[in-house]
Amino acid sequence: MPKIQVRNFAVSLDGFGSGLCQDLDNPIGLGGQELMKWFFPTQVWRKINGMDGGETGIDNTFAQQGFEEVGAWILGRNMFGPIRGPWPDETWKGWWGKDPPFHTPVFVLTNYPRPPLQMEGDTEFFFVNDGIHSALEQAKRAAKGRDIRVGGGVGIIRQYLLERLIDEVHLVLRPVLLGSGESLWRGLDLPSLGYECIESVKGERGTHIFLKRTFSLS
Amino acid sequence: MPKIQVRNFAVSLDGFGSGLCQDLDNPIGLGGQELMKWFFPTQVWRKINGMDGGETGIDNTFAQQGFEEVGAWILGRNMFGPIRGPWPDETWKGWWGKDPPFHTPVFVLTNYPRPPLQMEGDTEFFFVNDGIHSALEQAKRAAKGRDIRVGGGVGIIRQYLLERLIDEVHLVLRPVLLGSGESLWRGLDLPSLGYECIESVKGERGTHIFLKRTFSLS
Repeated sequence: MPKIQVRNFAVSLDGFGSGLCQDLDNPIGLGGQELMKWFFPTQVWRKINGMDGGETGIDNTFAQQGFEEVGAWILGRNMFGPIRGPWPDETWKGWWGKDPPFHTPVFVLTNYPRPPLQMEGDTEFFFVNDGIHSALEQAKRAAKGRDIRVGGGVGIIRQYLLERLIDEVHLVLRPVLLGSGESLWRGLDLPSLGYECIESVKGERGTHIFLKRTFSLS
Repeated sequence: MPKIQVRNFAVSLDGFGSGLCQDLDNPIGLGGQELMKWFFPTQVWRKINGMDGGETGIDNTFAQQGFEEVGAWILGRNMFGPIRGPWPDETWKGWWGKDPPFHTPVFVLTNYPRPPLQMEGDTEFFFVNDGIHSALEQAKRAAKGRDIRVGGGVGIIRQYLLERLIDEVHLVLRPVLLGSGESLWRGLDLPSLGYECIESVKGERGTHIFLKRTFSLS
């Protein structure tokens, strides 16, 4: 069975998955870059960005695994870009340039319709404006038996968790405090939703936490 | 300079330092025992409870250090016991039996007056009902140049953090989800209060997190 997974999603000690005031200069909000500092030194990240070298330790291994067997991604609209409201035009094509690192269909949740966007390297963005269930159904069909990765942000992950639709959550707990931003945990009673922590592995710049839904959906 | 410290205070991944519904059978609230499971296997805990043996690894080392150079403790009333409202009598003498593990003066914050309580092993409980600043002043005098350990619970730690009165916070992040309880992080913007994370060390059953106030009080 293909799994619905969150992988390599970074959170601060105080539970924030992004900072406040996202804009073009702060794709993860104010202070949000701190969340990603486990990823930048890895070979995986450097390769995505056209660079040689990089670390090949625990963090890199998990970064690599995060892309394996993924047949489709689901992203919230703010993961795709800083634009709010109706799309002014079709100029914005994501943060990642011509050849985004997904190499699969990517379903972007938005309230505003927009035609699909074909990128290089087999990434295609589809804009879904009829809700998280529809996005998941479309992603499942597109993934052809491979896994679905819910890439974030926090709001999207929380919506899918509240519906018990995510099988496994892999977080990278960064040893930093953000103080404000979007809280992953706030008001979310994960044990009541059927989730527990099954493993914790210390990497070079973060602790990899694995949560699993321990009941099957009927 | 003596330091005001939180040491070995356990929190869940989702940020809870205790569960809900504390009572005689659940001193740390429902599910709260999970928070302490890093401590029970240590030599330190076993010795406190009159037992030989126990593990002597990283968790034990930090547990041991948590008691060193402590000249006085400050506890919230719920750390001292499950009784709410006025003290019905003086029967309740804490969770720890005749010889509590503090071996120093312990200042218990409560809204209800009560005479001091001398225990075996040089632990003496003083009940402070004129606020956290008064408790801290009394603890400083009693500690005679040694450190003050703020033992918890969550509410007391948060109050002292909000006043920027704590120098260092050592948390034991347990790889468990509680889902509900008293949240350490909720609404607490620690970077704005001057705190940052300076170290993270993986122990056998928890990750030891060290926060520090990086400015001096004038």
